[in-house]
Amino acid sequence: MNTPLKIAIAGLGTVGAGTVGVIEKNSALLKARCGREIVITAVSARDRGRDRGVDVSPYAWYDDPCAMAQDADCDVVVELIGGSEGVARDLVTAALGSGKHVVSANKALLAHHGVELAKIAEEKGVSLNYEAAVAGGIPIVKTLREGLAGNALSRVYGILNGTCNYILSTMRETGRDYADVLAEAQSLGYAEADPAFDIEGVDAAHKIAILASVAFGGALNFPSVHVEGITNISALDIQFADELGFRIKLLGIAERHDDVIDQRVHPCLVRGGSPISTVEGVFNAVVADGDAVDTLMHEGRGAGAGPTSSAVVADIADIARGVSVPTFGVPAGVLRDYASQSIADRHGAYYLRLMLVDRPGVFADIACALRDHDVSMESLLQRGRNPGEPVPVVVITHETTERQMAQAIAKIADIDGVLEAPHMIRIESF
Amino acid sequence: MNTPLKIAIAGLGTVGAGTVGVIEKNSALLKARCGREIVITAVSARDRGRDRGVDVSPYAWYDDPCAMAQDADCDVVVELIGGSEGVARDLVTAALGSGKHVVSANKALLAHHGVELAKIAEEKGVSLNYEAAVAGGIPIVKTLREGLAGNALSRVYGILNGTCNYILSTMRETGRDYADVLAEAQSLGYAEADPAFDIEGVDAAHKIAILASVAFGGALNFPSVHVEGITNISALDIQFADELGFRIKLLGIAERHDDVIDQRVHPCLVRGGSPISTVEGVFNAVVADGDAVDTLMHEGRGAGAGPTSSAVVADIADIARGVSVPTFGVPAGVLRDYASQSIADRHGAYYLRLMLVDRPGVFADIACALRDHDVSMESLLQRGRNPGEPVPVVVITHETTERQMAQAIAKIADIDGVLEAPHMIRIESF
Repeated sequence: MNTPLKIAIAGLGTVGAGTVGVIEKNSALLKARCGREIVITAVSARDRGRDRGVDVSPYAWYDDPCAMAQDADCDVVVELIGGSEGVARDLVTAALGSGKHVVSANKALLAHHGVELAKIAEEKGVSLNYEAAVAGGIPIVKTLREGLAGNALSRVYGILNGTCNYILSTMRETGRDYADVLAEAQSLGYAEADPAFDIEGVDAAHKIAILASVAFGGALNFPSVHVEGITNISALDIQFADELGFRIKLLGIAERHDDVIDQRVHPCLVRGGSPISTVEGVFNAVVADGDAVDTLMHEGRGAGAGPTSSAVVADIADIARGVSVPTFGVPAGVLRDYASQSIADRHGAYYLRLMLVDRPGVFADIACALRDHDVSMESLLQRGRNPGEPVPVVVITHETTERQMAQAIAKIADIDGVLEAPHMIRIESF
Repeated sequence: MNTPLKIAIAGLGTVGAGTVGVIEKNSALLKARCGREIVITAVSARDRGRDRGVDVSPYAWYDDPCAMAQDADCDVVVELIGGSEGVARDLVTAALGSGKHVVSANKALLAHHGVELAKIAEEKGVSLNYEAAVAGGIPIVKTLREGLAGNALSRVYGILNGTCNYILSTMRETGRDYADVLAEAQSLGYAEADPAFDIEGVDAAHKIAILASVAFGGALNFPSVHVEGITNISALDIQFADELGFRIKLLGIAERHDDVIDQRVHPCLVRGGSPISTVEGVFNAVVADGDAVDTLMHEGRGAGAGPTSSAVVADIADIARGVSVPTFGVPAGVLRDYASQSIADRHGAYYLRLMLVDRPGVFADIACALRDHDVSMESLLQRGRNPGEPVPVVVITHETTERQMAQAIAKIADIDGVLEAPHMIRIESF
């Protein structure tokens, strides 16, 4: 165990440069902890001349990451390129195939091709580690794969996208509307120039698919994740939620019911004061429910050079120490093909915001539509009175199925005096 | 790796019986995750006849745990007896010495003899795992030893004793006084009949000494932990703290300043809304600050059969999988002997509650005493007016050293019109 562990890094963006920095800065600590040196031997990126804030001139340079995986003198290939296809996929496939360990921060790649890659890793007897792919600096993959190994897990959920949480937190704190806060988040670097992957929930969906696999020992099933983003959340919804004692959070949720897994990403109302409701700004949090541990929450930074590098280097340290567990907690060959629960079968309460003409009878029609679909109301909130004019009204329902709720909403949308498409947000009780 | 891992369990109290239950209930899961069966072969406890809610008749019974460690057919000895000396220490020493892995939930043993035991484990090439010794179901030892292996850690702190947190939370929620809530906690089973170890901070001190060792790679130094419990916290303090926007929490805190470590357990005022302030009731939480990860919090159940067994079984699963890292993160031989910071050198703000005769001049004398020791006031709160009679007054200071504060307090105690010993609580800003 005294030979150095040799690392080749593909992709020198924020996380790649951060990883080089952490390995260099904490090299003595890493050596003491791992019983051997961790040395970078090679790097690869598109633009050799770019200033990255770290000096990569001591390392062999490759323009082509796949050539690096094949030719460089290394034990571990660190893939920080991103994307579910193309170079990243080719690189990881080639590196594992040639018997090299792989550390990756690539949630899209894992979500789409995780099982196939895990099988190659197992055949070759190498590790495929991906702590940085989910929730940045939070070691949730390690917790699920190892720290909770004694538990049958029933649910894992969390705030998995810092951009969305920043936007929702800022909307609540300032009362400003979505578009305005998104623009500010972009100018501050908390949201990408093209924010679609974040705000439409796809990034969180990749992550919850990975967490579901590890938690339940299931084959990754990204296509079955129900995905909604935050683009429809208005300042008015945030205000109403606040008045009713809720916060609005974009959550990724995976629940297991015997042989069926429910995986979804959507905005949720969560009760103020619940641990997940207190996680604000760019922070991420993940909660796991197990039969022995009960409930466990991790909260930390979900992105950025430092936190993400922390996860990448921990994965490297595991390899250096010979710490190895199956990619998704159990061997790829025994990952189960769970059935998927349709969102229509969700059982829970709902927030329904309507814009109504304030005149007698309109609300009676709505109450009847709900009754006709067996949806009962828990509370009702009307903002002001404005006879003959539009007023916003919020209904909180008791628990029902989404199928019944959808039918009731379709009927409500057709009622004379209902001025906009009804706006529904799911309520999650933790 | 296909041979079963054989376990002998010493101590069949709540956690021991819980561990038997988890291993039995989740045996198929454990086999899939570990690639081998985990089987209990032997158990030991004082009273063979007691009903523990689990059937231990299939396992070899030993009245003497040390005889079990020596004679039983096992790879791992699980020590759930407790206590820093006597049987538990003898058992762990003997088991490690005979080349058996040890899993222990014994914080006192680790805090007092951890380094010596780690050395035996290393010599014999076996694991000494103790996740259950700190914060119950929260896998914080794994996170510090492995998940944050890339970080230089500067601080670790947390709510490490659920009994104290339950008492403080309940006092705040109900306005009731300490003795009353303690009695209730005892009747609910949240506090021991003899609660001294918990309420006087010793239990939390054992835990912070262990966390400090793992976080900073230091030799365990339990005697240097400054320890104060919660027995002096009154309902009045909790009310004042609330009015000033604080919560009172018993925290274990370990900070590293270059070659010096500061380890302490005492009640703290923490700003309301900070993540640690929202952790209520019997829950525990641990925060770690690292140079890469920034800040990371884990929150979960710190005690009870299920959560503690979850940690014990995770430690066993690591052994079954061949996951092994040095006991305190680095080999015992390179654990550093850090110098200890005296509590007198603490730098921070203070809450000072005084009982004063409400008459002109008394407060001027106090202000002068503070000024004479370079302690400046941030705010002042007087509860009501009561000319000539006692009134409580609270001073919040700016940051100063504890040495200056102690001198100012000694002087204040002697002022005519100060009716009780001044009551000081440290303010921690996270």
